[in-house]
Amino acid sequence: MSHRFRSGPGRDSRGDARNRVLQPLRQRPCYRFPQMKIALPALDARVGDIEANASGIASALASRPACDVLVTPELAMCGYPPRDLLLRDGVIPQCEEAVRTLATNMPAGVLVLLGTPWSTAESSSRCANALVACRDGEVVACAAKRLLPGYDVFDDDRYFRPGDAPAWVDHAGHRIGLLVCEDLWQAGDVRERTDYQADPVAELVEAGCDVLVAASASPFVVGKHDRQRETVVRLARTHGVTIVTVNRAGAEDDLVFDGTAMVVDPDGTLRFHRAPFAADDGGVVDLAAPIGHIAVDEQDPREQRFRALVSGVRGYVNKTGNTEVLVGLSGGIDSAVTAAIAAAAVGGAHVTGVLMPSRHSSDHSVADARELARCLEMGGCLEVSIESIHDAVLSTLARAESDGGPPVAEGSLADQNVQARARGILLMAISNARGGLVLSTGNKSEMAAGYATLYGDMCGALAVLGDVLKMDVYGLAEWMNANHEIAGFREPPIPVSSITKPPSAELRPDQLDQDSLPPYDVLDEIVRRWIEEEESAGRIVDETGFDPELVGGILRMIDAAQFKRDQAAIIPKVSRRAFGRGRPWPVIGRPGAAPVWIPATSSS
Amino acid sequence: MSHRFRSGPGRDSRGDARNRVLQPLRQRPCYRFPQMKIALPALDARVGDIEANASGIASALASRPACDVLVTPELAMCGYPPRDLLLRDGVIPQCEEAVRTLATNMPAGVLVLLGTPWSTAESSSRCANALVACRDGEVVACAAKRLLPGYDVFDDDRYFRPGDAPAWVDHAGHRIGLLVCEDLWQAGDVRERTDYQADPVAELVEAGCDVLVAASASPFVVGKHDRQRETVVRLARTHGVTIVTVNRAGAEDDLVFDGTAMVVDPDGTLRFHRAPFAADDGGVVDLAAPIGHIAVDEQDPREQRFRALVSGVRGYVNKTGNTEVLVGLSGGIDSAVTAAIAAAAVGGAHVTGVLMPSRHSSDHSVADARELARCLEMGGCLEVSIESIHDAVLSTLARAESDGGPPVAEGSLADQNVQARARGILLMAISNARGGLVLSTGNKSEMAAGYATLYGDMCGALAVLGDVLKMDVYGLAEWMNANHEIAGFREPPIPVSSITKPPSAELRPDQLDQDSLPPYDVLDEIVRRWIEEEESAGRIVDETGFDPELVGGILRMIDAAQFKRDQAAIIPKVSRRAFGRGRPWPVIGRPGAAPVWIPATSSS
Repeated sequence: MSHRFRSGPGRDSRGDARNRVLQPLRQRPCYRFPQMKIALPALDARVGDIEANASGIASALASRPACDVLVTPELAMCGYPPRDLLLRDGVIPQCEEAVRTLATNMPAGVLVLLGTPWSTAESSSRCANALVACRDGEVVACAAKRLLPGYDVFDDDRYFRPGDAPAWVDHAGHRIGLLVCEDLWQAGDVRERTDYQADPVAELVEAGCDVLVAASASPFVVGKHDRQRETVVRLARTHGVTIVTVNRAGAEDDLVFDGTAMVVDPDGTLRFHRAPFAADDGGVVDLAAPIGHIAVDEQDPREQRFRALVSGVRGYVNKTGNTEVLVGLSGGIDSAVTAAIAAAAVGGAHVTGVLMPSRHSSDHSVADARELARCLEMGGCLEVSIESIHDAVLSTLARAESDGGPPVAEGSLADQNVQARARGILLMAISNARGGLVLSTGNKSEMAAGYATLYGDMCGALAVLGDVLKMDVYGLAEWMNANHEIAGFREPPIPVSSITKPPSAELRPDQLDQDSLPPYDVLDEIVRRWIEEEESAGRIVDETGFDPELVGGILRMIDAAQFKRDQAAIIPKVSRRAFGRGRPWPVIGRPGAAPVWIPATSSS
Repeated sequence: MSHRFRSGPGRDSRGDARNRVLQPLRQRPCYRFPQMKIALPALDARVGDIEANASGIASALASRPACDVLVTPELAMCGYPPRDLLLRDGVIPQCEEAVRTLATNMPAGVLVLLGTPWSTAESSSRCANALVACRDGEVVACAAKRLLPGYDVFDDDRYFRPGDAPAWVDHAGHRIGLLVCEDLWQAGDVRERTDYQADPVAELVEAGCDVLVAASASPFVVGKHDRQRETVVRLARTHGVTIVTVNRAGAEDDLVFDGTAMVVDPDGTLRFHRAPFAADDGGVVDLAAPIGHIAVDEQDPREQRFRALVSGVRGYVNKTGNTEVLVGLSGGIDSAVTAAIAAAAVGGAHVTGVLMPSRHSSDHSVADARELARCLEMGGCLEVSIESIHDAVLSTLARAESDGGPPVAEGSLADQNVQARARGILLMAISNARGGLVLSTGNKSEMAAGYATLYGDMCGALAVLGDVLKMDVYGLAEWMNANHEIAGFREPPIPVSSITKPPSAELRPDQLDQDSLPPYDVLDEIVRRWIEEEESAGRIVDETGFDPELVGGILRMIDAAQFKRDQAAIIPKVSRRAFGRGRPWPVIGRPGAAPVWIPATSSS
């Protein structure tokens, strides 16, 4: 293994300037823009498919002959997040071999900065999350990610050994500092508390870098890119350096990536900006061409959510080798929005709506669902009543009453769950018999409160709205209807009556969600503060003025439903904290006994 | 907050001896056994229930008036593993307050070593995983766990800041070194590779400690305690010090704890040993009384698994406030062993067996299941046929054929899954209608191969055998039958024909598991090596001599089933690597494309 990562990453390439600290660029009388054309492809590397990923990088390079520098996203070679696959014998050597092969096949003089795992001499158990600089067939520098996030969905410490020194590469008369994701963001983009000991950006500037390049695989969160853009503009101006960023695209399990790229001049001018989920135009960015600042408006959060969820669904469907999806349609808002997002992701023709009415379904349920199917130009719309299955389950149990079997009363919890599970059994049977991934339709507010049936409406591969609060589901509907052309629909996709009618599970006569749950605006506010912002109960009470009993009751309800969420479908993360991997929470513990319940009168 | 953890943990208590290195004890001409009586209660602290945990520690102290020192397990104050509950505002201060309250209420002169989270001045985002020494109303020393495991189920780095110096407390003429779990085991007990930089044991010996105390919350793994015992004996002898250990008891979600305790003299004599899952006798250990070495035989791995699973089921049922459990009985070995373990855990009278025969069930299925119910003295045995539900699902779908609904052929995958899901719906309805936790019965080999139906036989709160390979399920049956009195049964619990008949899912005529799967001894060997030992495909082929195509096919099958395991019930961990939290694995990635598939001819 010839290019093993050594102590003092990139030592060879920086040795000559080690003790010479360059004057910050912005203080120089005559700033010289880097004479450099840089390619920032929006790569969607697939976890584990090293051969395809290497080939994607080679293609990106071949199609941009004008570039002097090409930067891939973080871990573009193995795909991100590799999880425990990275611990397998052979995976890291294969990535290293792929890097060497790429290096020997790239045009002379071009610098390629590759995100890849890389062995380190310091550890036999963890590798570096590296940005490896290749040029003229050689690995000329290697930067190990220095700040390893361990909050939310991140567990970098499990796999990586942090770099302990800044690393850079000199190229075309410039000194390019190498950063990997958190080295630049330092958790500021998601407002997490950390205790990082180093400031990699400042150290690179101190070392004389005039260009900083950051390769990221930064999962989508509503509003995150805006904070990242502000961070880059601020840091470029503060340090008087050019900053270049590129993020991975596509989706991987529960994570969606926005594929953004930015170049900001030392005076804070945004020279290049690829917006979240925008197509990669295949071009290169000239760092020296005269330009004006690109004005970027903050995107409507509803549009951000829409684009992220579309990308999440598309990624999941494509990468699992599927083309078709199935959505159970109730006529309500959640299933309508889920189906519309699915149609935007894979095309309406590949979506089949399944209507499963019961004795408790209202007339408008079927009509609204059929109207939705028409608006979305769905490939199929099946109507299958659950009545005979519902009856069969109840009569089967009734026959066992002499044996000690329990009576199941109409309208009881058991009876309601039987109906939800009859729908689950039908959806899964249709999926098994003719293919198509089942998308589940529950929203985050319901998942929080446990207002969902395990093995019933929770059935599915992907819980599309599992990280979207109920009021934001309405927001998505309204945005799609008001912007149907931008969203890719021929007409406003969501039937108005699905938006206006009061939410109901329709599992017993005249049932309304609000019989069992607080009003959604109240529930959502508490879920947002408790789950997404991780506020204490005391602070929630103080800041909202809600009744402490109400708040305490909802928080207990949320904790008590953890056992359901533990078995939920994958939830595409779009908020600061989604249910799932990023929120490990005790199931049988008694968090309710902890002081989180005690309303504080002082703000905390 | 008065007793905040300061830089240089326990500095006050060790200052006077900082630069004086004591001669190792075993080199002293006349070794003086510590004049000390030590209490090592097997506490089962509950995550989040700080008040109850503090009260449990106070009771343990009150009931052992003869002790000079009491040691709790790791994080006994908040319960282990606290997961993200620890990040909530208010939780750590409540633990600290509980420590201070305990300290002011303990008998004069007694030293209590408390496992608790503790604030550190060095970090606002992470606390110490501390062992806090209290005496005479004061916190006299505080050790922060130094080695933070990040492998398998551990994510200590997410929550804790590592201690950077050894900490001890002088008491009764002895210097007691403080260790938290991994500080002592250093991953040797589970044979994991790590890159720990410190050797906390050696540093404490160097600092002159003659007694080392290690508080653990070390999850059960078959064989782990034997390795831990060997480690303690070796280290005590090597360093010439007394080593004292205590582990937590009980179960918490997917983890089971053996409640062991050990005291080993400086010459390697095992002075005290509480065996895995043994009752706490409430006594104290006199470190000076003349004794002989306690001989400990390694426990039969089958008995270890049995005791661990019984503890796991009991913990889950009790801590969720349940008393009753439901098990679907097929007459096969998996459901029989699951039900027997449940009966051992909560009493046969609290177990209800549910027989759910179909057109494909053999005559002996019902007979064997009824015989099992009799042997286990089950509280109930319900028989409910799935026929009418199965028929209702198929006829519902047939009615939709004109609408484009798919035909479901008898014996097809869809048809088989409908049957499994009809059973799921019945079990869950019975659970909803009359209470009782559903235990699922699938074993690790099936979970690996994906030979299980999501929302069908995978329904349940706890997958009791989800970390037990099929051949080890037979081993459990044989051990229970051969040792039924030790196991707590009146007669051998498992019907012989459940052991001898060939495994079948009975979802189509004359079906046998071996029609779809390789022989279980082959499958188990591959699963054990691939999942539990994390061997590469090449090494598996080399060492087993199995056909590379067969191995590759099974490994692809395992990866392809990750989406099912992602939605599985909680699996009590008993092996080195269980499915679940300790094995984060990509779902939609293509790990199959990584070189793990390439058979290596050289051993790796």
